[in-house]
Amino acid sequence: MIQQIEISLPPMERGFHLITDHVVEKLHPLPEKGLLNLFIKHTSAALTVNENADPGVPADLDYIMNRIVPERDKNYVHTVEGADDMPAHAKCSLNGVSLTIPVSGHRLNLGTWQGIYLCEFRNRGGKRKLVATIYS
Amino acid sequence: MIQQIEISLPPMERGFHLITDHVVEKLHPLPEKGLLNLFIKHTSAALTVNENADPGVPADLDYIMNRIVPERDKNYVHTVEGADDMPAHAKCSLNGVSLTIPVSGHRLNLGTWQGIYLCEFRNRGGKRKLVATIYS
Amino acid sequence: MIQQIEISLPPMERGFHLITDHVVEKLHPLPEKGLLNLFIKHTSAALTVNENADPGVPADLDYIMNRIVPERDKNYVHTVEGADDMPAHAKCSLNGVSLTIPVSGHRLNLGTWQGIYLCEFRNRGGKRKLVATIYS
Repeated sequence: MIQQIEISLPPMERGFHLITDHVVEKLHPLPEKGLLNLFIKHTSAALTVNENADPGVPADLDYIMNRIVPERDKNYVHTVEGADDMPAHAKCSLNGVSLTIPVSGHRLNLGTWQGIYLCEFRNRGGKRKLVATIYS
Repeated sequence: MIQQIEISLPPMERGFHLITDHVVEKLHPLPEKGLLNLFIKHTSAALTVNENADPGVPADLDYIMNRIVPERDKNYVHTVEGADDMPAHAKCSLNGVSLTIPVSGHRLNLGTWQGIYLCEFRNRGGKRKLVATIYS
Repeated sequence: MIQQIEISLPPMERGFHLITDHVVEKLHPLPEKGLLNLFIKHTSAALTVNENADPGVPADLDYIMNRIVPERDKNYVHTVEGADDMPAHAKCSLNGVSLTIPVSGHRLNLGTWQGIYLCEFRNRGGKRKLVATIYS
């Protein structure tokens, strides 16, 4: 059985934002056994799973991604949409747009310290659309 | 229901190449609702989703990946297959070999600006094989 | 049909470790046609597919990841769990926690040179738990 819904996320600041609860409450009830695929329909934001407890972690992830893909490199060709745009595209591919997570016992089978993050790489990314597909 | 086909891509130059149309025409008809998994059977090429309109984006993605994983680092051990080989393996893991994309209304449910890219990291990678698996 | 099992990996040294055989022997028999999803329930280790033959490749992948995300950057905020911890979280997002691999003819449909790696980014990561979900 397949269920599919679109989830709209409100505009968020540039950075890494925990969205586990926001996503899970849209999906209830989850099946006894299956998989959830989350897909973000954008090219300058991404989805990742990372540490859900210390707010220092998303802050450092944002810093590290900014260091790996710096803005204002003179070799960039795609610059018309602002200095944050091309780096956002590269960070998008490095983190990924599609997450598949097991569902077990009617819950996401995440580790104790795992949460789902929206990675917003634009200064003003606006609303972001996800597609959630559940197989059971 | 599961459908599975192998898709062969012709040799492409080193860089990022849009393959959305090439893939979709092999898959028709797509189901009303489901998921497509695309898997590339290689370790020096990858699959990613990124901006599908400005050719500056794939050019910059290629440049950025080359900067993140430079060739000819004297610490590399795996060097027998050429200077482009070990960096290609690392870029492969950073971008990923497996993409899962929602299918809705008989189409890939990609965002307006999203396209599927083959990331060819070798100077002469030759043909590349994908496995497409569709769940519905 | 969905099968789901948890796989426990013994503690491994920091670095990239081939686990293809370990995983496959837990999964037998595999279906005629389907998909395997492997998910690691941790935020400082990852899963990736890469070259399975030359031990120089995992050594270089480890070196490259250490160069991309160095330890002891003075700007890191999340430092209480040791110098290897925050870089491990970032490497986790760069490599990914979820792998989906096609199953064809009762085997993983990997390329000749592909193997599944556990990426252990902590100095002492301990046991690691995976969830394997098979669709057929």
